[in-house]
Amino acid sequence: MSFAAVVLTLYPEMFPGHLGHSLAGKALARGDWSLDARQIRDFATDRHRTVDDTPAGGGAGMVLKPDVLARAIDAITAERPALPRLLMSPRGRPLTQARVRELAEGPGAVIICGRFEGVDQRVIDKRALEEVSIGDYILSGGEPAALTVLDAVVRLLPGVMGNQASGVQESFEGGLLEHPHYTRPQIFEGEPIPEVLTSGNHAAIRAWQQAQALALTRARRPDLLPEDDERKQQTQPVMK
Amino acid sequence: MSFAAVVLTLYPEMFPGHLGHSLAGKALARGDWSLDARQIRDFATDRHRTVDDTPAGGGAGMVLKPDVLARAIDAITAERPALPRLLMSPRGRPLTQARVRELAEGPGAVIICGRFEGVDQRVIDKRALEEVSIGDYILSGGEPAALTVLDAVVRLLPGVMGNQASGVQESFEGGLLEHPHYTRPQIFEGEPIPEVLTSGNHAAIRAWQQAQALALTRARRPDLLPEDDERKQQTQPVMK
Repeated sequence: MSFAAVVLTLYPEMFPGHLGHSLAGKALARGDWSLDARQIRDFATDRHRTVDDTPAGGGAGMVLKPDVLARAIDAITAERPALPRLLMSPRGRPLTQARVRELAEGPGAVIICGRFEGVDQRVIDKRALEEVSIGDYILSGGEPAALTVLDAVVRLLPGVMGNQASGVQESFEGGLLEHPHYTRPQIFEGEPIPEVLTSGNHAAIRAWQQAQALALTRARRPDLLPEDDERKQQTQPVMK
Repeated sequence: MSFAAVVLTLYPEMFPGHLGHSLAGKALARGDWSLDARQIRDFATDRHRTVDDTPAGGGAGMVLKPDVLARAIDAITAERPALPRLLMSPRGRPLTQARVRELAEGPGAVIICGRFEGVDQRVIDKRALEEVSIGDYILSGGEPAALTVLDAVVRLLPGVMGNQASGVQESFEGGLLEHPHYTRPQIFEGEPIPEVLTSGNHAAIRAWQQAQALALTRARRPDLLPEDDERKQQTQPVMK
Protein backbone atom coordinates (compact mmCIF):
# COMPACT_ATOMS: atom_id res chain seq x y z
CA MET A 1 0.00 0.00 0.00
CA SER A 2 1.24 3.44 -0.83
CA PHE A 3 1.66 6.24 1.69
CA ALA A 4 -1.72 7.85 2.47
CA ALA A 5 -1.78 11.50 3.49
CA VAL A 6 -5.08 12.80 4.86
CA VAL A 7 -5.17 16.50 5.68
CA LEU A 8 -7.86 18.19 7.77
CA THR A 9 -7.99 21.84 6.83
CA LEU A 10 -10.22 24.87 6.28
CA TYR A 11 -8.35 25.46 2.99
CA PRO A 12 -8.36 22.20 1.02
CA GLU A 13 -7.67 24.25 -2.13
CA MET A 14 -4.10 24.81 -0.84
CA PHE A 15 -3.36 21.13 -1.54
CA PRO A 16 -1.43 19.61 -3.26
CA GLY A 17 0.15 23.08 -3.82
CA HIS A 18 3.85 22.75 -4.65
CA LEU A 19 3.57 18.98 -4.12
CA GLY A 20 1.69 18.78 -7.42
CA HIS A 21 4.94 19.55 -9.28
CA SER A 22 8.35 17.96 -9.87
CA LEU A 23 9.19 14.61 -8.28
CA ALA A 24 6.45 14.73 -5.62
CA GLY A 25 3.84 15.58 -8.26
CA LYS A 26 4.94 12.77 -10.56
CA ALA A 27 4.89 10.33 -7.65
CA LEU A 28 1.39 11.52 -6.73
CA ALA A 29 0.21 10.98 -10.31
CA ARG A 30 1.78 7.50 -10.34
CA GLY A 31 0.08 6.56 -7.07
CA ASP A 32 3.30 6.24 -5.04
CA TRP A 33 1.43 8.29 -2.46
CA SER A 34 -2.08 9.70 -2.11
CA LEU A 35 -3.38 13.00 -0.77
CA ASP A 36 -6.87 13.57 0.56
CA ALA A 37 -7.54 17.12 1.77
CA ARG A 38 -10.77 17.26 3.79
CA GLN A 39 -12.72 20.36 4.71
CA ILE A 40 -13.12 20.62 8.50
CA ARG A 41 -16.19 22.79 7.94
CA ASP A 42 -18.03 19.77 6.53
CA PHE A 43 -18.10 18.37 10.06
CA ALA A 44 -19.87 21.35 11.60
CA THR A 45 -23.48 20.62 12.54
CA ASP A 46 -25.17 24.01 12.81
CA ARG A 47 -26.67 25.69 9.78
CA HIS A 48 -23.92 28.35 9.74
CA ARG A 49 -21.29 25.58 9.63
CA THR A 50 -19.46 27.22 12.53
CA VAL A 51 -15.94 25.87 13.16
CA ASP A 52 -14.55 28.43 15.63
CA ASP A 53 -15.57 30.50 18.60
CA THR A 54 -14.08 33.20 20.83
CA PRO A 55 -11.33 32.15 23.29
CA ALA A 56 -12.37 31.42 26.87
CA GLY A 57 -10.80 34.06 29.09
CA GLY A 58 -10.86 36.67 26.34
CA GLY A 59 -8.20 37.81 23.93
CA ALA A 60 -7.79 38.20 20.19
CA GLY A 61 -8.43 35.63 17.48
CA MET A 62 -10.69 32.62 17.35
CA VAL A 63 -10.25 29.04 18.56
CA LEU A 64 -11.18 25.89 16.60
CA LYS A 65 -14.09 24.19 18.35
CA PRO A 66 -13.24 20.82 19.94
CA ASP A 67 -16.52 19.13 19.02
CA VAL A 68 -16.29 19.90 15.30
CA LEU A 69 -12.65 18.89 15.05
CA ALA A 70 -13.26 15.71 17.07
CA ARG A 71 -16.01 14.69 14.64
CA ALA A 72 -13.67 15.24 11.70
CA ILE A 73 -10.86 13.26 13.34
CA ASP A 74 -13.18 10.42 14.32
CA ALA A 75 -14.50 10.13 10.77
CA ILE A 76 -10.96 9.81 9.38
CA THR A 77 -9.88 7.43 12.14
CA ALA A 78 -12.83 5.14 11.37
CA GLU A 79 -11.61 4.92 7.77
CA ARG A 80 -7.88 4.79 8.51
CA PRO A 81 -7.31 3.58 12.08
CA ALA A 82 -3.60 2.87 11.54
CA LEU A 83 -2.52 6.40 10.64
CA PRO A 84 -0.68 8.57 13.20
CA ARG A 85 -2.47 11.88 13.85
CA LEU A 86 -0.35 15.00 13.72
CA LEU A 87 -1.39 18.52 14.66
CA MET A 88 0.80 21.20 13.12
CA SER A 89 1.54 23.70 15.89
CA PRO A 90 4.37 26.05 16.90
CA ARG A 91 3.89 24.58 20.39
CA GLY A 92 4.76 21.09 19.15
CA ARG A 93 7.84 18.94 19.23
CA PRO A 94 10.34 20.13 16.59
CA LEU A 95 10.28 17.97 13.47
CA THR A 96 13.45 15.95 12.95
CA GLN A 97 14.74 13.96 10.01
CA ALA A 98 14.42 10.83 12.19
CA ARG A 99 10.67 11.47 12.63
CA VAL A 100 10.35 12.17 8.89
CA ARG A 101 11.97 8.83 8.16
CA GLU A 102 9.64 7.01 10.59
CA LEU A 103 6.61 8.58 8.96
CA ALA A 104 7.88 7.64 5.47
CA GLU A 105 8.25 4.01 6.60
CA GLY A 106 4.69 3.95 7.95
CA PRO A 107 1.26 3.70 6.25
CA GLY A 108 0.67 7.45 6.05
CA ALA A 109 -0.48 10.26 8.32
CA VAL A 110 -3.48 12.35 9.25
CA ILE A 111 -2.30 15.96 9.42
CA ILE A 112 -4.52 18.49 11.14
CA CYS A 113 -4.08 22.15 10.24
CA GLY A 114 -5.11 24.79 12.74
CA ARG A 115 -5.90 28.36 11.78
CA PHE A 116 -6.97 31.34 13.85
CA GLU A 117 -5.55 31.62 17.34
CA GLY A 118 -5.36 27.87 17.97
CA VAL A 119 -7.16 24.63 18.68
CA ASP A 120 -9.12 23.80 21.85
CA GLN A 121 -6.72 21.95 24.16
CA ARG A 122 -9.30 19.31 25.08
CA VAL A 123 -9.47 17.80 21.61
CA ILE A 124 -5.66 17.70 21.47
CA ASP A 125 -5.63 15.77 24.75
CA LYS A 126 -8.62 13.49 24.16
CA ARG A 127 -7.58 12.48 20.64
CA ALA A 128 -3.91 12.18 21.65
CA LEU A 129 -2.76 14.38 18.80
CA GLU A 130 0.98 14.52 18.19
CA GLU A 131 1.81 18.23 18.12
CA VAL A 132 4.56 18.86 15.58
CA SER A 133 6.41 22.11 14.89
CA ILE A 134 8.45 22.66 11.74
CA GLY A 135 10.41 25.55 13.29
CA ASP A 136 10.48 28.45 15.71
CA TYR A 137 8.45 30.93 13.68
CA ILE A 138 4.75 31.63 13.18
CA LEU A 139 2.87 30.70 10.02
CA SER A 140 -0.56 31.79 8.80
CA GLY A 141 -1.85 28.31 9.65
CA GLY A 142 -0.98 24.65 9.65
CA GLU A 143 -1.22 24.28 5.87
CA PRO A 144 2.27 25.53 4.90
CA ALA A 145 3.67 23.33 7.68
CA ALA A 146 1.71 20.27 6.49
CA LEU A 147 2.98 20.77 2.94
CA THR A 148 6.53 21.03 4.27
CA VAL A 149 6.24 17.82 6.33
CA LEU A 150 4.76 15.98 3.35
CA ASP A 151 7.53 17.20 1.04
CA ALA A 152 10.15 15.84 3.45
CA VAL A 153 8.32 12.52 3.76
CA VAL A 154 7.44 12.01 0.10
CA ARG A 155 11.01 12.38 -1.15
CA LEU A 156 11.94 9.35 1.01
CA LEU A 157 9.19 7.09 -0.35
CA PRO A 158 10.34 4.18 -2.54
CA GLY A 159 10.57 5.12 -6.20
CA VAL A 160 10.20 8.88 -5.71
CA MET A 161 13.80 10.05 -5.95
CA GLY A 162 15.60 9.17 -9.15
CA ASN A 163 18.87 8.67 -7.36
CA GLN A 164 18.37 6.78 -4.10
CA ALA A 165 22.00 7.28 -3.13
CA SER A 166 21.58 10.99 -2.60
CA GLY A 167 19.03 10.24 0.11
CA VAL A 168 21.68 8.72 2.32
CA GLN A 169 24.57 11.11 2.77
CA GLU A 170 23.14 14.50 3.58
CA SER A 171 22.69 17.03 6.35
CA PHE A 172 21.42 15.61 9.68
CA GLU A 173 21.42 12.00 8.52
CA GLY A 174 24.92 11.61 9.93
CA GLY A 175 24.32 14.09 12.76
CA LEU A 176 26.33 16.81 11.01
CA LEU A 177 25.65 19.57 8.51
CA GLU A 178 26.75 18.60 5.04
CA HIS A 179 30.19 19.54 3.67
CA PRO A 180 30.45 22.20 0.93
CA HIS A 181 29.94 21.24 -2.72
CA TYR A 182 31.82 22.25 -5.85
CA THR A 183 31.41 21.64 -9.55
CA ARG A 184 32.75 23.01 -12.84
CA PRO A 185 34.04 25.48 -13.89
CA GLN A 186 37.38 24.59 -12.31
CA ILE A 187 38.05 28.27 -11.60
CA PHE A 188 35.16 30.60 -10.76
CA GLU A 189 35.95 34.30 -10.41
CA GLY A 190 39.57 33.46 -9.65
CA GLU A 191 38.80 30.77 -7.07
CA PRO A 192 39.64 27.16 -7.91
CA ILE A 193 37.85 24.06 -6.66
CA PRO A 194 39.79 22.87 -3.55
CA GLU A 195 42.73 20.84 -4.84
CA VAL A 196 42.00 17.71 -2.82
CA LEU A 197 38.65 17.25 -4.61
CA THR A 198 40.34 16.88 -7.98
CA SER A 199 43.17 14.67 -6.67
CA GLY A 200 41.46 11.37 -7.35
CA ASN A 201 42.50 10.24 -3.84
CA HIS A 202 39.16 9.01 -2.49
CA ALA A 203 40.34 8.53 1.10
CA ALA A 204 41.72 12.06 1.20
CA ILE A 205 38.52 13.44 -0.34
CA ARG A 206 36.34 11.68 2.24
CA ALA A 207 38.58 12.86 5.10
CA TRP A 208 38.44 16.45 3.83
CA GLN A 209 34.65 16.32 3.48
CA GLN A 210 34.23 14.92 6.99
CA ALA A 211 36.53 17.57 8.46
CA GLN A 212 34.59 20.30 6.62
CA ALA A 213 31.25 18.92 7.83
CA LEU A 214 32.49 18.83 11.41
CA ALA A 215 33.96 22.35 11.23
CA LEU A 216 30.75 23.74 9.73
CA THR A 217 28.58 22.05 12.36
CA ARG A 218 30.86 23.30 15.15
CA ALA A 219 30.70 26.85 13.83
CA ARG A 220 27.01 27.06 12.99
CA ARG A 221 25.18 24.40 14.93
CA PRO A 222 27.10 23.18 17.97
CA ASP A 223 23.69 22.18 19.36
CA LEU A 224 23.68 19.25 16.91
CA LEU A 225 26.84 17.75 18.40
CA PRO A 226 26.33 15.27 21.27
CA GLU A 227 26.40 16.88 24.73
CA ASP A 228 29.20 14.66 25.92
CA ASP A 229 31.16 15.18 22.73
CA GLU A 230 34.62 16.50 23.50
CA ARG A 231 34.47 18.42 20.22
CA LYS A 232 31.58 20.45 21.55
CA GLN A 233 33.20 21.27 24.88
CA GLN A 234 35.95 23.14 23.07
CA THR A 235 33.54 25.13 20.96
CA GLN A 236 31.77 28.42 21.45
CA PRO A 237 28.55 29.03 19.54
CA VAL A 238 29.21 31.71 16.93
CA MET A 239 25.89 32.05 15.20
CA LYS A 240 23.20 30.73 17.49
CA MET B 1 6.49 50.38 -1.56
CA SER B 2 5.14 46.95 -0.91
CA PHE B 3 7.23 43.93 0.04
CA ALA B 4 8.92 42.46 -3.06
CA ALA B 5 9.69 38.74 -3.10
CA VAL B 6 11.92 37.55 -5.93
CA VAL B 7 12.51 33.80 -6.08
CA LEU B 8 15.22 32.11 -8.12
CA THR B 9 14.14 28.54 -8.85
CA LEU B 10 14.14 25.73 -11.37
CA TYR B 11 10.40 25.30 -10.66
CA PRO B 12 8.72 28.72 -11.00
CA GLU B 13 5.41 26.88 -11.47
CA MET B 14 5.51 26.01 -7.74
CA PHE B 15 4.81 29.69 -6.95
CA PRO B 16 2.69 31.22 -5.51
CA GLY B 17 1.45 27.73 -4.47
CA HIS B 18 -0.45 27.90 -1.19
CA LEU B 19 0.37 31.61 -0.98
CA GLY B 20 -2.18 32.20 -3.74
CA HIS B 21 -5.00 31.39 -1.31
CA SER B 22 -6.53 32.81 1.88
CA LEU B 23 -5.07 35.97 3.44
CA ALA B 24 -1.71 35.80 1.63
CA GLY B 25 -3.45 35.32 -1.71
CA LYS B 26 -5.81 38.24 -1.13
CA ALA B 27 -2.88 40.43 -0.08
CA LEU B 28 -0.99 39.40 -3.23
CA ALA B 29 -4.00 40.28 -5.41
CA ARG B 30 -4.31 43.65 -3.63
CA GLY B 31 -0.61 44.42 -4.17
CA ASP B 32 0.32 44.39 -0.48
CA TRP B 33 3.24 42.25 -1.62
CA SER B 34 4.58 41.03 -4.97
CA LEU B 35 6.04 37.71 -6.05
CA ASP B 36 8.35 37.25 -9.02
CA ALA B 37 9.50 33.65 -9.57
CA ARG B 38 12.41 33.54 -12.04
CA GLN B 39 13.70 30.49 -13.86
CA ILE B 40 17.40 29.94 -13.10
CA ARG B 41 17.70 28.02 -16.37
CA ASP B 42 17.11 31.25 -18.30
CA PHE B 43 20.57 32.35 -17.15
CA ALA B 44 22.41 29.36 -18.62
CA THR B 45 24.45 30.23 -21.71
CA ASP B 46 25.03 26.92 -23.50
CA ARG B 47 22.51 25.60 -25.97
CA HIS B 48 21.46 22.79 -23.60
CA ARG B 49 20.72 25.41 -20.90
CA THR B 50 22.80 23.42 -18.41
CA VAL B 51 22.37 24.49 -14.78
CA ASP B 52 24.12 21.68 -12.92
CA ASP B 53 27.14 19.39 -13.15
CA THR B 54 28.62 16.44 -11.26
CA PRO B 55 30.16 17.12 -7.83
CA ALA B 56 33.92 17.62 -7.66
CA GLY B 57 35.40 14.69 -5.73
CA GLY B 58 32.62 12.34 -6.85
CA GLY B 59 29.43 11.25 -5.12
CA ALA B 60 25.73 11.16 -5.90
CA GLY B 61 23.55 13.98 -7.14
CA MET B 62 24.31 17.11 -9.07
CA VAL B 63 25.54 20.55 -7.98
CA LEU B 64 24.17 23.90 -9.19
CA LYS B 65 26.84 25.64 -11.28
CA PRO B 66 28.29 28.80 -9.72
CA ASP B 67 28.54 30.75 -12.98
CA VAL B 68 24.88 30.29 -13.96
CA LEU B 69 23.58 31.09 -10.49
CA ALA B 70 25.89 34.13 -10.20
CA ARG B 71 24.49 35.51 -13.46
CA ALA B 72 20.95 35.06 -12.18
CA ILE B 73 21.76 36.72 -8.85
CA ASP B 74 23.58 39.60 -10.52
CA ALA B 75 20.63 40.26 -12.83
CA ILE B 76 18.23 40.49 -9.88
CA THR B 77 20.66 42.55 -7.81
CA ALA B 78 20.98 45.08 -10.65
CA GLU B 79 17.20 45.53 -10.59
CA ARG B 80 16.76 45.35 -6.81
CA PRO B 81 20.03 46.25 -5.08
CA ALA B 82 18.42 46.78 -1.66
CA LEU B 83 17.00 43.29 -1.20
CA PRO B 84 18.71 40.79 1.13
CA ARG B 85 19.69 37.56 -0.64
CA LEU B 86 18.71 34.32 1.09
CA LEU B 87 19.73 30.82 0.09
CA MET B 88 17.43 28.14 1.48
CA SER B 89 19.67 25.38 2.83
CA PRO B 90 19.62 22.79 5.63
CA ARG B 91 23.17 23.99 6.36
CA GLY B 92 21.94 27.51 7.08
CA ARG B 93 21.17 29.46 10.19
CA PRO B 94 17.84 28.36 11.66
CA LEU B 95 15.03 30.77 10.84
CA THR B 96 13.66 32.63 13.86
CA GLN B 97 10.59 34.78 14.35
CA ALA B 98 12.95 37.72 14.98
CA ARG B 99 14.48 37.29 11.49
CA VAL B 100 11.00 36.91 9.99
CA ARG B 101 9.99 40.21 11.58
CA GLU B 102 13.15 41.95 10.27
CA LEU B 103 12.44 40.69 6.76
CA ALA B 104 8.81 41.84 6.99
CA GLU B 105 9.96 45.33 7.98
CA GLY B 106 12.36 45.50 5.00
CA PRO B 107 11.82 46.11 1.27
CA GLY B 108 11.59 42.41 0.34
CA ALA B 109 13.93 39.50 -0.29
CA VAL B 110 15.62 37.53 -3.04
CA ILE B 111 15.19 33.86 -2.17
CA ILE B 112 17.38 31.32 -3.95
CA CYS B 113 16.16 27.74 -4.10
CA GLY B 114 18.68 24.96 -4.53
CA ARG B 115 17.79 21.53 -5.87
CA PHE B 116 19.92 18.47 -6.50
CA GLU B 117 22.77 17.80 -4.10
CA GLY B 118 23.54 21.47 -3.43
CA VAL B 119 24.98 24.76 -4.66
CA ASP B 120 28.64 25.43 -5.48
CA GLN B 121 30.19 26.94 -2.35
CA ARG B 122 32.04 29.64 -4.30
CA VAL B 123 28.88 31.43 -5.39
CA ILE B 124 27.57 31.31 -1.81
CA ASP B 125 30.79 32.97 -0.62
CA LYS B 126 31.29 35.46 -3.45
CA ARG B 127 27.71 36.70 -3.46
CA ALA B 128 27.55 36.68 0.35
CA LEU B 129 24.34 34.67 0.40
CA GLU B 130 22.58 34.36 3.74
CA GLU B 131 22.04 30.63 4.20
CA VAL B 132 18.73 30.05 5.99
CA SER B 133 17.31 26.77 7.26
CA ILE B 134 13.66 26.36 8.18
CA GLY B 135 14.35 23.24 10.28
CA ASP B 136 16.45 20.13 10.85
CA TYR B 137 14.99 17.97 8.09
CA ILE B 138 15.64 17.54 4.39
CA LEU B 139 13.29 18.83 1.70
CA SER B 140 13.12 18.06 -2.02
CA GLY B 141 14.54 21.51 -2.69
CA GLY B 142 14.49 25.11 -1.56
CA GLU B 143 10.99 25.80 -2.91
CA PRO B 144 8.92 24.44 0.01
CA ALA B 145 11.25 26.32 2.36
CA ALA B 146 10.93 29.57 0.39
CA LEU B 147 7.12 29.29 0.47
CA THR B 148 7.27 28.71 4.23
CA VAL B 149 9.50 31.75 4.83
CA LEU B 150 7.24 33.91 2.69
CA ASP B 151 4.13 32.71 4.50
CA ALA B 152 5.68 33.72 7.84
CA VAL B 153 6.74 37.11 6.47
CA VAL B 154 3.56 37.98 4.56
CA ARG B 155 1.26 37.50 7.53
CA LEU B 156 3.19 40.27 9.32
CA LEU B 157 2.90 42.81 6.49
CA PRO B 158 0.65 45.81 7.15
CA GLY B 159 -2.95 45.14 6.18
CA VAL B 160 -2.61 41.39 5.66
CA MET B 161 -4.03 40.05 8.89
CA GLY B 162 -7.58 41.09 9.68
CA ASN B 163 -6.87 41.22 13.39
CA GLN B 164 -3.53 42.87 14.06
CA ALA B 165 -3.77 42.07 17.76
CA SER B 166 -3.37 38.36 17.24
CA GLY B 167 0.03 39.00 15.70
CA VAL B 168 1.40 40.18 19.00
CA GLN B 169 0.79 37.61 21.69
CA GLU B 170 1.84 34.26 20.29
CA SER B 171 4.47 31.53 20.52
CA PHE B 172 8.08 32.75 20.46
CA GLU B 173 7.21 36.43 20.41
CA GLY B 174 7.47 36.50 24.18
CA GLY B 175 10.18 33.82 24.27
CA LEU B 176 7.74 31.13 25.42
CA LEU B 177 5.42 28.64 23.77
CA GLU B 178 1.84 29.81 23.83
CA HIS B 179 -0.56 28.79 26.60
CA PRO B 180 -3.41 26.36 25.79
CA HIS B 181 -6.65 27.64 24.28
CA TYR B 182 -10.26 26.80 25.02
CA THR B 183 -13.62 27.73 23.56
CA ARG B 184 -17.21 26.54 23.71
CA PRO B 185 -18.77 24.10 24.40
CA GLN B 186 -18.28 24.65 28.13
CA ILE B 187 -18.03 20.88 28.67
CA PHE B 188 -16.45 18.67 25.98
CA GLU B 189 -16.60 14.92 26.54
CA GLY B 190 -16.92 15.46 30.27
CA GLU B 191 -14.10 17.97 30.56
CA PRO B 192 -14.96 21.58 31.40
CA ILE B 193 -13.03 24.67 30.35
CA PRO B 194 -10.61 25.49 33.23
CA GLU B 195 -12.63 27.44 35.79
CA VAL B 196 -10.30 30.42 35.99
CA LEU B 197 -10.92 31.24 32.32
CA THR B 198 -14.62 31.77 32.91
CA SER B 199 -14.12 33.67 36.19
CA GLY B 200 -14.04 37.13 34.62
CA ASN B 201 -10.96 37.89 36.77
CA HIS B 202 -8.59 39.22 34.15
CA ALA B 203 -5.52 39.34 36.39
CA ALA B 204 -6.06 35.72 37.43
CA ILE B 205 -6.60 34.68 33.80
CA ARG B 206 -3.39 36.35 32.68
CA ALA B 207 -1.44 34.80 35.57
CA TRP B 208 -2.81 31.33 34.75
CA GLN B 209 -1.95 31.72 31.05
CA GLN B 210 1.59 32.85 31.85
CA ALA B 211 2.11 29.95 34.26
CA GLN B 212 0.81 27.52 31.63
CA ALA B 213 3.08 28.99 28.93
CA LEU B 214 6.09 28.71 31.21
CA ALA B 215 5.26 25.14 32.25
CA LEU B 216 4.76 24.08 28.64
CA THR B 217 8.01 25.68 27.52
CA ARG B 218 9.88 24.09 30.43
CA ALA B 219 8.48 20.65 29.58
CA ARG B 220 8.82 20.75 25.80
CA ARG B 221 11.39 23.35 24.87
CA PRO B 222 13.75 24.19 27.73
CA ASP B 223 16.18 25.28 25.00
CA LEU B 224 14.03 28.40 24.50
CA LEU B 225 14.55 29.58 28.08
CA PRO B 226 17.58 31.84 28.70
CA GLU B 227 20.74 29.94 29.71
CA ASP B 228 21.10 31.88 32.92
CA ASP B 229 17.44 31.56 33.73
CA GLU B 230 16.93 30.03 37.14
CA ARG B 231 13.77 28.36 35.83
CA LYS B 232 15.83 26.38 33.36
CA GLN B 233 18.41 25.19 35.88
CA GLN B 234 15.70 23.36 37.76
CA THR B 235 14.36 21.68 34.67
CA GLN B 236 15.17 18.46 32.91
CA PRO B 237 14.35 18.19 29.20
CA VAL B 238 11.53 15.69 28.79
CA MET B 239 10.93 15.67 25.07
CA LYS B 240 14.04 16.99 23.36
